[in-house]
Amino acid sequence: MGIAELTRNAVHVLPDGALEKKLALGRPLRVKLGIDVTAPDVTLGNGIPLQRMAAFQREGHIGVLIVGDYTTRIGDPSGRSAARPILSAEEIERNAKRFVDQASTIIDPERTEVRFNGEWLAGLDFAEILRLTRTTTVAQILERDDFANRYAAGAPISVSELLYPLMQAYDSVAVEADVELGGTDQLYNLLAGRDVMDAYGLDPQVALTVEYLVSWDGAGMSASRGNYIGLEEAPEEQFGKAMRIPDSLLEQWYRLVMEEPPPEGDPLDAKLALARFVVTRAHGAAAARAAEEHFTRVVREGRAPDEMREHALPAGDPVHLPVVLADAFGLSTSEARRLIAQGGVKVADVPVSGLDLPRVSLAGAVLRAGKRRFVRLTD
Amino acid sequence: MGIAELTRNAVHVLPDGALEKKLALGRPLRVKLGIDVTAPDVTLGNGIPLQRMAAFQREGHIGVLIVGDYTTRIGDPSGRSAARPILSAEEIERNAKRFVDQASTIIDPERTEVRFNGEWLAGLDFAEILRLTRTTTVAQILERDDFANRYAAGAPISVSELLYPLMQAYDSVAVEADVELGGTDQLYNLLAGRDVMDAYGLDPQVALTVEYLVSWDGAGMSASRGNYIGLEEAPEEQFGKAMRIPDSLLEQWYRLVMEEPPPEGDPLDAKLALARFVVTRAHGAAAARAAEEHFTRVVREGRAPDEMREHALPAGDPVHLPVVLADAFGLSTSEARRLIAQGGVKVADVPVSGLDLPRVSLAGAVLRAGKRRFVRLTD
Repeated sequence: MGIAELTRNAVHVLPDGALEKKLALGRPLRVKLGIDVTAPDVTLGNGIPLQRMAAFQREGHIGVLIVGDYTTRIGDPSGRSAARPILSAEEIERNAKRFVDQASTIIDPERTEVRFNGEWLAGLDFAEILRLTRTTTVAQILERDDFANRYAAGAPISVSELLYPLMQAYDSVAVEADVELGGTDQLYNLLAGRDVMDAYGLDPQVALTVEYLVSWDGAGMSASRGNYIGLEEAPEEQFGKAMRIPDSLLEQWYRLVMEEPPPEGDPLDAKLALARFVVTRAHGAAAARAAEEHFTRVVREGRAPDEMREHALPAGDPVHLPVVLADAFGLSTSEARRLIAQGGVKVADVPVSGLDLPRVSLAGAVLRAGKRRFVRLTD
Repeated sequence: MGIAELTRNAVHVLPDGALEKKLALGRPLRVKLGIDVTAPDVTLGNGIPLQRMAAFQREGHIGVLIVGDYTTRIGDPSGRSAARPILSAEEIERNAKRFVDQASTIIDPERTEVRFNGEWLAGLDFAEILRLTRTTTVAQILERDDFANRYAAGAPISVSELLYPLMQAYDSVAVEADVELGGTDQLYNLLAGRDVMDAYGLDPQVALTVEYLVSWDGAGMSASRGNYIGLEEAPEEQFGKAMRIPDSLLEQWYRLVMEEPPPEGDPLDAKLALARFVVTRAHGAAAARAAEEHFTRVVREGRAPDEMREHALPAGDPVHLPVVLADAFGLSTSEARRLIAQGGVKVADVPVSGLDLPRVSLAGAVLRAGKRRFVRLTD
């Protein structure tokens, strides 16, 4: 196994050679990952960095999950949005437990520490915060793309926003992280952690980033967007959603989720194997078999014919489904709406509930109205 | 008296009309001034904003002196210089007492509160500091000349430096300032205090700035530069130093220190009246009379003749005095140095100790070597 397994699918492992040096220390490394406890579910996308944590754990290292309870209790970093909820200590505690339960389908809970950053951040006084802020220049933070673009555009950036990356960096000091995992958009924060650790006299952490998993709607999978498979979602749901991804995503999902190349041959078979993998990991082989049977019986019964009409999608995105149904099958739009409400309309074998669907999920898919009406949608 | 007296010599009173509204409240206003307790002496220059505080006190308002003990205990804001001393709590306490003793030659100690900002800053936690930093944007701080020039030049600005203006602003929240006094270079800080008070739901303070007093060397009077008259310095020292200012500064000193226009006639008489005022305010009329007698007897004895040679200063600034003495009186430069060391060389009636003097203090002054040799220096 070794380093190739630890860094599989990594986009950045920085600085060069640092991970090798850490591994040569011969002691268990502390592998940090910050987690979001404001969302109800842990997604298959969250699973990608967790899979790296699991790889480290299999080689005897320690996973350290950081719950940003202090930040969460305070609210939105930018102060610009009321969208990010302010949670009570009890809610945070409960959500953190739920996160670990779900994440434990991937990581080893016996080799995982769960730490709440209020443990150290709540005790910092102004003098200590000044010490922390002295480690970093304004330019270092503003040169980051997200800030640089806003600053150049004259958009207001609150001084408080400069403190958030430093809080995350201080978490690395507090837990003495050897490695920090994150998505590629976290690279700057992970590197900021290195600078701050160095200023505090610690051996800086290795920054290890991984790709974001793209979901069936073409966007990054995220709990807030709703386009996700939950790590502990019901087997039938997981199976059906996994079957829903377009063929074009098979390569990424195989590589990131299953950590192997997709098989040659029918994409449908590849998708079935992927769906089996997802359910088996979460719920075991028996549940996966049952989910597949359910999928075959209910979702695929009345299988679409091999040959069918094509129907061109109207312009625009999202696509208003009642209009497509009306055009394709000669229904009135109110009949079309009723059929959708009854669960009688499916796209790529999955029942749809919304009236407007993203174009990317429709192009190339089979649209089915009731049991026997099918068209293949074309862009 | 009224508002004209309160704002005499003010450079900014902002925003327009705000002081009038504060005065119309009919209650004693709280007039804040931050003081530096790292310097041993309070100078005549520090006295300029104190004179405004005294004017407010004479109309029944309250002076609030803010000792930045918290900042002083932490050290240099920029982290770039070891020059600013880190003082112990005891030293700060002692220096603050000394400041008030000296300042009380101008302000009314009975109508003055002395507050240490550690009282409120030491108790702020990260959450409260985030609330504070949310009130201000990075651009608002970086647009200040001192930061803008450094940022444009690519010079490092630590994130901690952005917090110092906010600490000063928070002082205004803590003491509920109605007016903050300061030199013109404090304008941004005084206005930042307004924004922060507003964000904390308080009626923002009025920003009132005054000119810096220019000293005999052409620079702003400051304790760290050594070019100052101490508010409680010995009467003879005060008298002699006041007599040392060039005629060109008489207008500013009369206006700022005495708050009246300089008299017509002999500048020497004007200077004598100014010196009397400074000593009388600090030590009383009897001490002023004694200081003047001392000045006349010792400093002016062997008075310069009405008519004397002129001697052109060599190029350059500062001017190397031994060369001037050698040229003007035919001394060797080693004789000139010895005469200086013995206290036998005077410029404008004041013995000189250094070998290099700023040009501004020499041009137009009488240079005297020993008892009987005089020239008038010309530029």
